[in-house]
Amino acid sequence: MENLEIKRHSLAHIMAAAIKELWPEAQLAIGPAIENGFYYDIDFFDVKINEADLRQIEKKMSHLIKQNLPFTKEEKDITKAIAAAKTEGSIYKQEILEDLQKEGETKVSFYTVSTFTDLCRGPHIKSTIEIKPGSFKLQKLAGAYWRGDEKNKMLTRIYGLAFETKEELDNYLTLLTEAEKRDHRKLGKELDLFCFSDLVGPGLPLFTPKGVIIIDELKNHIETVCRRYGFEKVMTPHLAKIDLYEISGHAKKFSDELFHVTSDKGHQMVMKPVQCPHQTQIYASRVRSYRDLPIRYMESEKQYRAEKSGEVGGLSRVYAITVEDGHTFCRIDQVKEELKDLVLIIKDFYRALGLWGQHWVSLSVRDYAHPEKYIGETADWDLCETMLQEVSDEMGLNAKRQEGEAALYGPKLDFMFRDSLGKEIQIPTVQVDFATPKRFNLTYTDKDGTEKNPVMVHRAILGSYERFLALIIEHFAGAFPLWLSPVQVKIISVSEAHKDYCQKLAGELKAEKIRVEIDDSNETVGNKIRKAIAEKSPHMLVIGDKEMNSEMLSVRDRGQQESREISKQDFIAELKKKIEDKSL
Amino acid sequence: MENLEIKRHSLAHIMAAAIKELWPEAQLAIGPAIENGFYYDIDFFDVKINEADLRQIEKKMSHLIKQNLPFTKEEKDITKAIAAAKTEGSIYKQEILEDLQKEGETKVSFYTVSTFTDLCRGPHIKSTIEIKPGSFKLQKLAGAYWRGDEKNKMLTRIYGLAFETKEELDNYLTLLTEAEKRDHRKLGKELDLFCFSDLVGPGLPLFTPKGVIIIDELKNHIETVCRRYGFEKVMTPHLAKIDLYEISGHAKKFSDELFHVTSDKGHQMVMKPVQCPHQTQIYASRVRSYRDLPIRYMESEKQYRAEKSGEVGGLSRVYAITVEDGHTFCRIDQVKEELKDLVLIIKDFYRALGLWGQHWVSLSVRDYAHPEKYIGETADWDLCETMLQEVSDEMGLNAKRQEGEAALYGPKLDFMFRDSLGKEIQIPTVQVDFATPKRFNLTYTDKDGTEKNPVMVHRAILGSYERFLALIIEHFAGAFPLWLSPVQVKIISVSEAHKDYCQKLAGELKAEKIRVEIDDSNETVGNKIRKAIAEKSPHMLVIGDKEMNSEMLSVRDRGQQESREISKQDFIAELKKKIEDKSL
Repeated sequence: MENLEIKRHSLAHIMAAAIKELWPEAQLAIGPAIENGFYYDIDFFDVKINEADLRQIEKKMSHLIKQNLPFTKEEKDITKAIAAAKTEGSIYKQEILEDLQKEGETKVSFYTVSTFTDLCRGPHIKSTIEIKPGSFKLQKLAGAYWRGDEKNKMLTRIYGLAFETKEELDNYLTLLTEAEKRDHRKLGKELDLFCFSDLVGPGLPLFTPKGVIIIDELKNHIETVCRRYGFEKVMTPHLAKIDLYEISGHAKKFSDELFHVTSDKGHQMVMKPVQCPHQTQIYASRVRSYRDLPIRYMESEKQYRAEKSGEVGGLSRVYAITVEDGHTFCRIDQVKEELKDLVLIIKDFYRALGLWGQHWVSLSVRDYAHPEKYIGETADWDLCETMLQEVSDEMGLNAKRQEGEAALYGPKLDFMFRDSLGKEIQIPTVQVDFATPKRFNLTYTDKDGTEKNPVMVHRAILGSYERFLALIIEHFAGAFPLWLSPVQVKIISVSEAHKDYCQKLAGELKAEKIRVEIDDSNETVGNKIRKAIAEKSPHMLVIGDKEMNSEMLSVRDRGQQESREISKQDFIAELKKKIEDKSL
Repeated sequence: MENLEIKRHSLAHIMAAAIKELWPEAQLAIGPAIENGFYYDIDFFDVKINEADLRQIEKKMSHLIKQNLPFTKEEKDITKAIAAAKTEGSIYKQEILEDLQKEGETKVSFYTVSTFTDLCRGPHIKSTIEIKPGSFKLQKLAGAYWRGDEKNKMLTRIYGLAFETKEELDNYLTLLTEAEKRDHRKLGKELDLFCFSDLVGPGLPLFTPKGVIIIDELKNHIETVCRRYGFEKVMTPHLAKIDLYEISGHAKKFSDELFHVTSDKGHQMVMKPVQCPHQTQIYASRVRSYRDLPIRYMESEKQYRAEKSGEVGGLSRVYAITVEDGHTFCRIDQVKEELKDLVLIIKDFYRALGLWGQHWVSLSVRDYAHPEKYIGETADWDLCETMLQEVSDEMGLNAKRQEGEAALYGPKLDFMFRDSLGKEIQIPTVQVDFATPKRFNLTYTDKDGTEKNPVMVHRAILGSYERFLALIIEHFAGAFPLWLSPVQVKIISVSEAHKDYCQKLAGELKAEKIRVEIDDSNETVGNKIRKAIAEKSPHMLVIGDKEMNSEMLSVRDRGQQESREISKQDFIAELKKKIEDKSL
């Protein structure tokens, strides 16, 4: 156990000691260290704990810590420990001890700090003085069922944050505030990008005009990049007979995540959980020759997963995701070049978002100890893994080999990025698949006239628009680069007299394909500017008498306190260039 | 009964007479006049009738006709008629007679021509000489269950075509051949626009790259036109709780046409049968002011209908249609202007396809005798109908008032076009709806601070992409205008030596956003040209030594036998202009 984790765990004990001093009747359940801190589940019986109580507990904890109290360990015979717990009325500890006894334990250890003794495996710090002043904070209250079972009693869980120093804690708190401000659910509502409806139901986001602008820009961008590498767009239905997925193996893989579709007329279908099998059917619709390959399909259609209803929320976990998906069908001698092209597409796309460079790559290979977890032949797997390693070497990807991370049908390269808050994002992937074309009996006629199975290469670039939108909202904190901004220029009228000119100016910008919104309401200019700032428009134009009577504009750029003067022509040229270049 | 219908019915009798002469054992069932001709269902027992037999029957019919045979009528007592049928062994006629008797008939009429007498209400022509030579033709054979019930015996149905003159019949046969050539299922396969898969299932088309190009061009075009009139794009899920449609009234309206979605985890949803209710929920997601209106949403998402599995086929009848749908939410004082704008959008769109001008408009109002068939208040209906009439008058639409053709929630303008074969197409519609906003309690705050319901205006322009694609495939016979053509220029290499130059030229055209396909296979130039003609490419470039060594191109335009010389620059400029203008 690393040092910080030991401190966090010890803080759980110190908190428990403080609570027992304040509420001697309280009964402790369990109190582990967790990521960034610790918690303890406590039964306060009829007492309701609130925010003010947390501050009081914190104060008591600091008081104990300052006293330089030692953590002392004692071993006890388990039978005696159970008897003691019974006598004390420590109902939860007694239950834990009885379970340990059933598992065959005969001795258990206890740790004491101050006057509080707790059943615990340890280890702990030597003395409370090791906890630096201001390095911890009680964060929040929550309810938690005893043993996570909703049939049991609901206990009070107190969460604490803890780091080595006060400075580290402060940094983390700042990050947390920032993450809350960037929460895509909050910003999505504030910026009017998407909404939910009780009548439509949870897990089914509705995208408003501004959200669709971002999605369409991403879609156009990715399609343009992929077309350059020979991808052609297809469009497949959202339904299929289950037969399709029985052949592909997805019926078994997704089983209870499948949505079933029926009607009073006796229809029986499923909603597609993945795009790949549909795309194989387009390949299969014609006779193919070695000359036709590679054939590359892409599409942005929805796929469906029956997530647990309690787990859907925001855009990150929904019932239907609009996946930008693509597949290449090629000959074995074309696979390596194709893999390289796909890596270039990923590089192109993520560089435009400023994410390329802060990434690492995983070469996800099979779990060699458990070949039964995969489909396909060993020789094919060996070949694919070698090819992916070569691609990594030749392109300087420096991929880390990760055993057991391969897909069902083949090994893959996975790309991991970090967003602006340091959170890891795993989206793009390139996967080689020998199995699917064989399962669907896809063929091409080779030069020598024989029928062969093509290799199928799967690739994801941005994954699903829903999750990707959530991600870039949080990454950019809603302040999107110009090309992605739903409103690129906000025009604000000073008074009634300037309304017509605002309309005229908006028309000129729109004619140049610049997205404009006018605020010519009767609010004060100050209010209108504040509103525009909250909306995070990249550029703001305030139109008064001066602007109306000249070709010069007064532009306030996002994040700037002051305006700058620029001619209308130059402003339009500047914006068009930035949009064209997808400048950040 | 009109004259031609009488002739068609008489021809059914003449055919029966001919058949009885050729196969005296045959038993006749029923033989009515139908659109374009007639048929007779016949029990030939063990005899199998084929194409050659049809020609023989035709010959016999012509022979009878030439003899100037009269049709004579006779009335009989029904009991005697039944007895006679029994004696003759006319099993089917006997059954019909017995049913007539059950219905209370006491007398029935018989018509005789040549030696054949048939139970029939008439009327008939006076004599066979009224049938003009060459004005009829036996068209095809089909199976038909006696009384349409699959539990009964399968009879042989012989279809005949019949017109007033040979010329009219010939015209119809030409049209039929043309329609067969243009059949979108046939052309869709030949031109590789879409396909079906047994594993995916019927009624679920998969769109191949070329089909998607046409759909995307249409989508871009319609979105561009609609944006000009203030429409903004939204994106709504394909699923919803049934609650949404219980409020909108669609749950009841579609009932057994709804697809139900369930999962092993207990989910219960339906697939959306229409887009409108989802769009109301985006309107409802924020507080709206009178200043915000009109708000206009458009989207191109799928909607689902559980069609009878026996009825799906091609693109015209499918389970999921991708509907280009839009709704305007506005104040009552904005409705009329909005209606006019929507008519202008329809005009813009259909003019670009060369269909505007060959149309008529229906002002579809309610069935005044049955107000219970509609939702909403009488005063609202009166107001809407008046407004639509005014729009028709002011825009010179000359709409025909059609009672009983209104939608559930309001009156509408429907636009009817004729395709190049004269078939009527009813797609675009503009509908006023006071009821839906009230059902969903949609509101806006008016100038005076009161909460009011907006008016919802529904509009369809191209309807669904699936049906519209079927329609334009048939309208253009696959020879799409340049802007819609999946391949705009086909480049053909004369020999191996010209391959690289073809690639270079293709690159130059692609850089100008012109869609190009190269045929540099080893087939003969003649074969490659024939293939390109079959693919209906608007322009074909054959690249040999001469072209490689000059800036001049040899262009063969669709439908032309000869090539023309044009500089590369001029050719590119010509194409870009045509594409930009959406020239036909």
